Amino acid sequence: MQSAELFNVVAPADGLARVLRVVAAPLPAESVPVMTALGRVTAADLAAPADLPAFARSTMDGYAVAARDTFGASESLPALLEIVGEVAMGRTPDVRLGPGQAARIFTGGLLPDGADAVVIIEETQLVGPVSVEVLRPAAPGEHVVRPGEDVRRGEVVVLGGHVLRPQDLGALLGVGLTAVAVRRRPRVAIVPTGDEIVPPDVEPQPGQVRNINGGTLAAQVLAAGGVPLTYPIVPDDAEALRRAARAALDAADVLVLSAGSSVSTRDMTATVLDGLGSPGIVAHGVALKPGKPTVLAVADGKAVFGLPGNPVSSMITFELFVAPTLRHLLGIAEPPRPATVRAALARNVPSAPGREDHLPVRLVERDGALLAEPVFGKSNLIFTLVRADGLIVVPLDALGLMAGQSVDVRLF
Amino acid sequence: MQSAELFNVVAPADGLARVLRVVAAPLPAESVPVMTALGRVTAADLAAPADLPAFARSTMDGYAVAARDTFGASESLPALLEIVGEVAMGRTPDVRLGPGQAARIFTGGLLPDGADAVVIIEETQLVGPVSVEVLRPAAPGEHVVRPGEDVRRGEVVVLGGHVLRPQDLGALLGVGLTAVAVRRRPRVAIVPTGDEIVPPDVEPQPGQVRNINGGTLAAQVLAAGGVPLTYPIVPDDAEALRRAARAALDAADVLVLSAGSSVSTRDMTATVLDGLGSPGIVAHGVALKPGKPTVLAVADGKAVFGLPGNPVSSMITFELFVAPTLRHLLGIAEPPRPATVRAALARNVPSAPGREDHLPVRLVERDGALLAEPVFGKSNLIFTLVRADGLIVVPLDALGLMAGQSVDVRLF
Repeated sequence: MQSAELFNVVAPADGLARVLRVVAAPLPAESVPVMTALGRVTAADLAAPADLPAFARSTMDGYAVAARDTFGASESLPALLEIVGEVAMGRTPDVRLGPGQAARIFTGGLLPDGADAVVIIEETQLVGPVSVEVLRPAAPGEHVVRPGEDVRRGEVVVLGGHVLRPQDLGALLGVGLTAVAVRRRPRVAIVPTGDEIVPPDVEPQPGQVRNINGGTLAAQVLAAGGVPLTYPIVPDDAEALRRAARAALDAADVLVLSAGSSVSTRDMTATVLDGLGSPGIVAHGVALKPGKPTVLAVADGKAVFGLPGNPVSSMITFELFVAPTLRHLLGIAEPPRPATVRAALARNVPSAPGREDHLPVRLVERDGALLAEPVFGKSNLIFTLVRADGLIVVPLDALGLMAGQSVDVRLF
Repeated sequence: MQSAELFNVVAPADGLARVLRVVAAPLPAESVPVMTALGRVTAADLAAPADLPAFARSTMDGYAVAARDTFGASESLPALLEIVGEVAMGRTPDVRLGPGQAARIFTGGLLPDGADAVVIIEETQLVGPVSVEVLRPAAPGEHVVRPGEDVRRGEVVVLGGHVLRPQDLGALLGVGLTAVAVRRRPRVAIVPTGDEIVPPDVEPQPGQVRNINGGTLAAQVLAAGGVPLTYPIVPDDAEALRRAARAALDAADVLVLSAGSSVSTRDMTATVLDGLGSPGIVAHGVALKPGKPTVLAVADGKAVFGLPGNPVSSMITFELFVAPTLRHLLGIAEPPRPATVRAALARNVPSAPGREDHLPVRLVERDGALLAEPVFGKSNLIFTLVRADGLIVVPLDALGLMAGQSVDVRLF
């Protein structure tokens, strides 16, 4: 019974690396409408199929001119031009400029033949129904967007492995790309286990507790870009667990087993996870608090996680191991920077060297300064996380952090 | 024609305040399953209907004991206890402790009657099938979570106006709350306008451009917690615009008109928006670059925005005016802190006082330092935003920012 306590613990980063080394990634691509692709990850570089804009456009309201017709113009000696028409929006202009001629144009209008610049209306003076004085010389190209100035045909506009943002969608639509190849979302099977666990809608009897981790984990999967598949609670029975884990893994890309919390069930969990496929367990126990009894495994290319049953451990180990694995499966080239704030630590935090500590903190403003107050609490307490605004990390080799020290708080 | 240029510009924060002052908020509540409530906003304070945990639980594997039976125990003089049974997980223990007795217990197990502490297995020694030596005294309550220690019945567990996170969902499920009252998502009608605009799947003819802003705005609405309703492109015709705006506003909580970019169509847009309801326009033009020609209006309690047609202006003014209005409609008490990083500005940025500048920047690591490189580009260019990682702000009263200066980059 004590054998499982003899963890061969590895550093968290090393444990993750062992998973990523043997997992099959990235997931296949699928084509989706750009309008539904927010947050999806591009499967390949995307090149512009055409110049944007396709034609020289005015960026202001005013007059399309040939710049050379305005050289030397000033308020005292304006250039007098003949107005030969107006550029209608969205159509080929039915005017073309000869020497000494101008055409009314609006923002976004196509520059007519013979024009190479726009004079803004504030720098002109109407002197008759078809005559305008230009009060300042225009430079060639002034107030004009050249064809291809936004993006050139063939130019890579969005790299592969990019998490699509609102402006990326607009840009793809702008060059006529209405569908985009993105990585399929990873399906993550969540299997809660434990004789004492009941579904949230069941009134617990003495000794029973509701399934907390299932809901938190499913939401974490969603937030990380995956699709959660939630499974019924499995009792602490090796054969039942083996069957449930096998079925869930077959239906999913990743298996997360929310483990029973006692040492004996942890042993059972580890045995089951190890038997799901090759190479099996790659790390049993990590140098982490909370979250030490985490099991990391890979079964025939699919990542398998045995997460601790304590709610705080469960949430933190998901972020440390499962979320980066999902990003790896999605082929994300550069993970989005996590939202962090710097704050002054409100009190000393002790730690042990050789162990990475993750500590929930609450942010408090005091006298204009931002303080990070540790929310101490047993890792069994989900409300420790509810009351917290984020996490701070005490690195593997540190003895602790000092009150007043500036820390990065990773918001959640 | 020049009249619309005489903007009565207001500071961005003032313009937003004018909208929020007269808009009807918050939106009504609706009940949704907790499992689907990630990112939704609670409509009221939520209290725990029961203690969590409901019973005293062990936090370790070991022996449930009466602490007084272990007082004075040491390795040289252990306390000898009789093992009277084992606490099965998830059931009322069928054992109760008399003086000098102990029961095997696992993490999460219910403490049997007569026990008030748990001795961890590493601090015991089995001396027979029903006898165990305890090598260290246990304090009352040691390795035990008391009933209600996580949260007490009646305690407010999540405040109203809170954006629900994964751990909040787990916690609500943990106390048996499987449905939660949240604010209805704001429906945001997006109406693109302009004779020159064609849908993204149409090959533009000379003078035409594809609708870029519609896709960007719809994604921005989603990211801000709203539901985008996308409407067909409306030509630059006052009566068509009036009809489209009226129908869209009737179907939505918020109307966003992606305006034609020329001065004349801006005038038309403003007239239409002003006529949709009371009080009409509250700000016509803001002291902002880019985004000066933004129109802010409220029609009978509903917010109405005329956003500039230029892609960069459109995106920035959405974040400055529409997104905070959506948070207001959702009743968000404390807006989530935006993801920002501090970086050194790579070059001087000039500005004019009396105007708030928002400048796209790209983040570059150089010699271990993070640099923010301004992505200069006309506000007509959507790829200015695609190439950028975030925005920096030059405040209203600043003359600019200096190279090397430390700036907050708001990531997007």
